[in-house]
Amino acid sequence: MREEYRAELADVTQTLVAMAEGVRGAMRRASAALLSVDATDAEEVVLADAETDALYHQVEEKVYDLLARQAPVASDLRLVVTALHIGADLERMGDLASHVAKIALRRVPTAVPEELRPVIADMAATADGIAGKVAEVLRTADAARAAELEHDDDEMDELLKQLYGLMLGTAWRHGVGPAVDGALLGRWYERYADHAVNAGRSVLYFVTGETAAPAAS
Amino acid sequence: MREEYRAELADVTQTLVAMAEGVRGAMRRASAALLSVDATDAEEVVLADAETDALYHQVEEKVYDLLARQAPVASDLRLVVTALHIGADLERMGDLASHVAKIALRRVPTAVPEELRPVIADMAATADGIAGKVAEVLRTADAARAAELEHDDDEMDELLKQLYGLMLGTAWRHGVGPAVDGALLGRWYERYADHAVNAGRSVLYFVTGETAAPAAS
Repeated sequence: MREEYRAELADVTQTLVAMAEGVRGAMRRASAALLSVDATDAEEVVLADAETDALYHQVEEKVYDLLARQAPVASDLRLVVTALHIGADLERMGDLASHVAKIALRRVPTAVPEELRPVIADMAATADGIAGKVAEVLRTADAARAAELEHDDDEMDELLKQLYGLMLGTAWRHGVGPAVDGALLGRWYERYADHAVNAGRSVLYFVTGETAAPAAS
Repeated sequence: MREEYRAELADVTQTLVAMAEGVRGAMRRASAALLSVDATDAEEVVLADAETDALYHQVEEKVYDLLARQAPVASDLRLVVTALHIGADLERMGDLASHVAKIALRRVPTAVPEELRPVIADMAATADGIAGKVAEVLRTADAARAAELEHDDDEMDELLKQLYGLMLGTAWRHGVGPAVDGALLGRWYERYADHAVNAGRSVLYFVTGETAAPAAS
């Protein structure tokens, strides 16, 4: 049973890797669509979110199957349920990429105000790096890399402060609409990173069996 | 075993009811603090969020215990795991109440701009009604009432549109800062309602064993 259990757990992990890669690609395309104002790309991101949802559904089914047939206990049980938590975080990251794409669609043909572009581009790059790391640690089970995710999130918080500083500063000339969109965008990148850190923390537990402190929100 | 299983499930439900009542009270106090600019109340909401987190932790522990000792299968298994999903939604509602309280703290001593007050008050009342219904259906297992939650959410979406209309309209005279705060507030009430609807959908499954369609996000 032990070997079969491991094989089934590896199968769940594979699906989680596919989810992580999917939501990374989704946010990358959504950010590119936002900064280049490409409506087609943005629409595809919104539509593709159903694939992430389908993968999450697969994770749930596999976990139920594993629980029902292997009836794991103690730390094995926690490991299996942790897969559900990781799946839920990744699923939400897909939603947030879709939200960014929807802002890109709404802004067509107006681009993000010039002075916000560098910080939005940095948030997009940070989000991409974090999501890439989640996929990587799911694949490699590298605990040290998973632990790095905690600090990658600090960078996003710093960028969010910069973004707000620009919109709330005296030099802001774009009025309320772009500032409201900017605030929502900032929030979505930040939440994307939060969920990635949560997922990373769960991966850390998934691969080492050790719990980290819960995330601040 | 069957009876013991039911008793343990009832115990998990009790903890979920306590969480639902807690996050309802938290959002009610956060909204009151926001509209009356009461810093003490707002601070207490932020501090009290740890209690919600502790209850969620209890739900997780009880679910693990139940899974390990009763090894439920099929629909029983889904029911138990559903409790985790409900707990996660309620936990997030607590976070969102805390976010509203933090805006209240940041605004001291400036109140919400006069023209936003009625719609924010309506969002607060809608959030309160929805959270109350989640607690109620968890307690009573009333499937018809749980199903109502779907439509209560539509009301929140409508209020969010009104809020944005006010801030993006030509009559807006409060500049960017209050609009950004208003956008975030609107978003948090909306997410609070979303999580409540998700929880309600899970409760529906929890009490009837029937799944509803997944939430749009």
